[in-house]
Amino acid sequence: MDNYTMLTDFYEITMANGFFNEGYKDTVVYFDMFFRTVPDGGGFAIMAGVEEVIDYLKNLEFTKEDIDFLQKKNMFSEDFLDYLLTFKFSCDVWAIPEGTPIFPGEPILTVRGPAIQAQFIETMILLTVNFQTLIATKANRIVRAADGRAVMEFGARRAQGAYAAVFGARAAFIGGVGGTSNVLTDREFSVPALGTMAHSWVQMFDTEYEAFCAYARNYPDDTTLLIDTYNVLKSGLPNAIKTFDEVLKPMGKRPKGVRIDSGDITYLSKKCRRALDEAGYPDCKIVASNSLDEYIIRDMLVQGAKIDLFGVGERLITSKSNPVMGGVYKLVAIEKEDGTIEPKIKISENVSKITTPCFKQVYRLFDRDTNKAIADVITLHDEEIDADKPYELFDPVYTWKRKQVDNFYARPLLERIFENGKCVYKSPSAGELKTYCKAQLDTLWDELKRFENPHKYYVDLSQDLWQIKNDLLRSVTYADKDI
Amino acid sequence: MDNYTMLTDFYEITMANGFFNEGYKDTVVYFDMFFRTVPDGGGFAIMAGVEEVIDYLKNLEFTKEDIDFLQKKNMFSEDFLDYLLTFKFSCDVWAIPEGTPIFPGEPILTVRGPAIQAQFIETMILLTVNFQTLIATKANRIVRAADGRAVMEFGARRAQGAYAAVFGARAAFIGGVGGTSNVLTDREFSVPALGTMAHSWVQMFDTEYEAFCAYARNYPDDTTLLIDTYNVLKSGLPNAIKTFDEVLKPMGKRPKGVRIDSGDITYLSKKCRRALDEAGYPDCKIVASNSLDEYIIRDMLVQGAKIDLFGVGERLITSKSNPVMGGVYKLVAIEKEDGTIEPKIKISENVSKITTPCFKQVYRLFDRDTNKAIADVITLHDEEIDADKPYELFDPVYTWKRKQVDNFYARPLLERIFENGKCVYKSPSAGELKTYCKAQLDTLWDELKRFENPHKYYVDLSQDLWQIKNDLLRSVTYADKDI
Repeated sequence: MDNYTMLTDFYEITMANGFFNEGYKDTVVYFDMFFRTVPDGGGFAIMAGVEEVIDYLKNLEFTKEDIDFLQKKNMFSEDFLDYLLTFKFSCDVWAIPEGTPIFPGEPILTVRGPAIQAQFIETMILLTVNFQTLIATKANRIVRAADGRAVMEFGARRAQGAYAAVFGARAAFIGGVGGTSNVLTDREFSVPALGTMAHSWVQMFDTEYEAFCAYARNYPDDTTLLIDTYNVLKSGLPNAIKTFDEVLKPMGKRPKGVRIDSGDITYLSKKCRRALDEAGYPDCKIVASNSLDEYIIRDMLVQGAKIDLFGVGERLITSKSNPVMGGVYKLVAIEKEDGTIEPKIKISENVSKITTPCFKQVYRLFDRDTNKAIADVITLHDEEIDADKPYELFDPVYTWKRKQVDNFYARPLLERIFENGKCVYKSPSAGELKTYCKAQLDTLWDELKRFENPHKYYVDLSQDLWQIKNDLLRSVTYADKDI
Repeated sequence: MDNYTMLTDFYEITMANGFFNEGYKDTVVYFDMFFRTVPDGGGFAIMAGVEEVIDYLKNLEFTKEDIDFLQKKNMFSEDFLDYLLTFKFSCDVWAIPEGTPIFPGEPILTVRGPAIQAQFIETMILLTVNFQTLIATKANRIVRAADGRAVMEFGARRAQGAYAAVFGARAAFIGGVGGTSNVLTDREFSVPALGTMAHSWVQMFDTEYEAFCAYARNYPDDTTLLIDTYNVLKSGLPNAIKTFDEVLKPMGKRPKGVRIDSGDITYLSKKCRRALDEAGYPDCKIVASNSLDEYIIRDMLVQGAKIDLFGVGERLITSKSNPVMGGVYKLVAIEKEDGTIEPKIKISENVSKITTPCFKQVYRLFDRDTNKAIADVITLHDEEIDADKPYELFDPVYTWKRKQVDNFYARPLLERIFENGKCVYKSPSAGELKTYCKAQLDTLWDELKRFENPHKYYVDLSQDLWQIKNDLLRSVTYADKDI
């Protein structure tokens, strides 16, 4: 299925029909996507999913069959169904580029357009950006834990559906892993796929040694042997070394590695390292897999594990310790017939659920000397930040907490990806996004990169935006008390 | 994409090429899929995903582009790539029907066929059955917690990718939920979709009351109002009742419901119930949503929440408390050239990871009087269980634990879905599977349905199978000690 138009919550359609019948079809509205907390208690998330959002929006179109299906519900007006069949997507969309570190409370994607359309695309935008951002963020944590060692994404078999396997592997690559086991992600996005053998390969032969020899004969330039089918130290390791000696050496080839997929991998890796070194294979890498994540990898390295490459499966591709990214999509403004933009707010007893109204932009302020990110400032969309003057940051809740910034430059983060329904953005390749992400990570202080209790990054509002939000909060609260 | 042939782990292809070059292309092998632990510590899982496995296998085919892509890797022989381009899927496949309760250690899907093919399909089979079984299982837990009240699946926006949203909603329906928010799952699988309004509907109007009136005018037969945009008790509830009185009553219509999506829902539901009853709307249902799962629903009901319908989102569609189903796919036998079947075992230091060899069948034994399931017995594939004679069950580890069963009938669970590459099974509709699942659940004792510390169901081996497994274990262990 290339067309996910019907992948939407039913209420998007009941509301769309209602907007249509109530005369709001062409009312221009603004929606923001944002999230409230970073998965796993981290200091930041990594934006991902924009390319798939673009694909979705480019293919947005109802078929005759879709309309027939909706008609049978006996809930929607004929005029509305005619509109659905013939409408052309005409929204403007802005998004923070994939690979950018993002923070709670800031708009990461903004849609401006006719109420029906802007509302309708909520489900797929959330689904896409939530999942891919979750996996890019998790991947980056795991890569940080591996501390310079290679990490590969091996999770397809435990992914939550085919899309999760394909796009999750892409997101993990943007977040920093070196490649994937998933061949389709390689074909679609040039994310390098690799892999060697399963236990079943070893079982197919009469002995482990025969299985290893056969593999080495077939892939003399790429011999990584899985050594835990029977017993790593008593069988797999000695058979691997024998294969390297008797098959590869006569061909003038060096082994690539051995893989351990079970048991006490830290302990086994040290034993393997020593034996491989002694046998004359100090260049033979040790690959570890089996339910790894950032916490286990950190512990393994603290205990001196001799591992060169981590294959990470289910705990990455599902973000197992925190499998939900709670991004939301909220109405923030409505254009009145006279062209003025009326800000909209969603209040809540729960203060963290109060939205920030208005059509907005996000600026990231960087220190000119260190190139480190100082703060994000959310502004009205057409506000500009003059980097030639000192800029005063203030906490939007504890407003007496203030800090003056100078010697900085400011970069607007939201880039336009659709203009009046036309895509105006060319997605970089996954490899380019990975490189970009790595460079962006370098702009963050190490204190933000801790797994637990990271430093809290400033996400502030401009004075003008803060004023509008506060005025609106007071007026709504006042109205509420009046009831 | 209808063709997920390339969604496979790279090692499936390196092994396939190796099998081809080593002369194992036509060697017939047997693989089993099984799982080792039930998610969330439950007593059983619910099989799902068979229909999507069938679709995958029917569409299994390499394109010229796929072959070109693989050729560029410079790892695979030309003859092998030619084989891939022209091969016809020719495996036999057996699966336990969707909606059946399944237990750790038993084969839930078995593949028999040429080594290359049977190995190659591992990734998609695991991915598909793991995810859908996970969600059907979770849905069933949540439905049990709701204790007869309706449960709807509302999780698309937090699903892990588009497939997870679509097929997860189908799996949840099989597991017992009443419907979904996902329109595409309705169109594809006739799983009823429903939904009414988001907070943005309310925000689009100048007042909450106007928003409610507009909705009631548009959907007088289906008016469920979201009452927590501003304040449930001070604003949403009184405005809803006023709308019922002033818009619906004059039309002779009754309201459908009110929905609460935030705050202390248990407390608010009681207040709403009383107010609605007093206003003359005892038939108006109360819908609750907002990060619910089986534990929260159980607590809400224990505290007397007055809720008629639960909308369950992210914690169902991702199985948040346990987002990975660890099903595996293991080689269990190889047919020798003389036609004999050689059993294969994968041993492990970790006893729970030892596989059960041979081409097998699973029988479920039911008591003739109560129709309750007594035990599952894994047998050799062509063994039959004679229900006219007493049958002796024994624990495969503590073999002195024995129990004689009589007055029973036995049902083989693995049904053939492919014969020599041709699909020979017609998937029931999602609705039929839901009905079947419910009936199967009735065959399980309540002690198995606890959320924590459920009774352990017997999954035993036949005497013949046990003997083969033990002989094999001894021979392998002996060989291992010999090294």
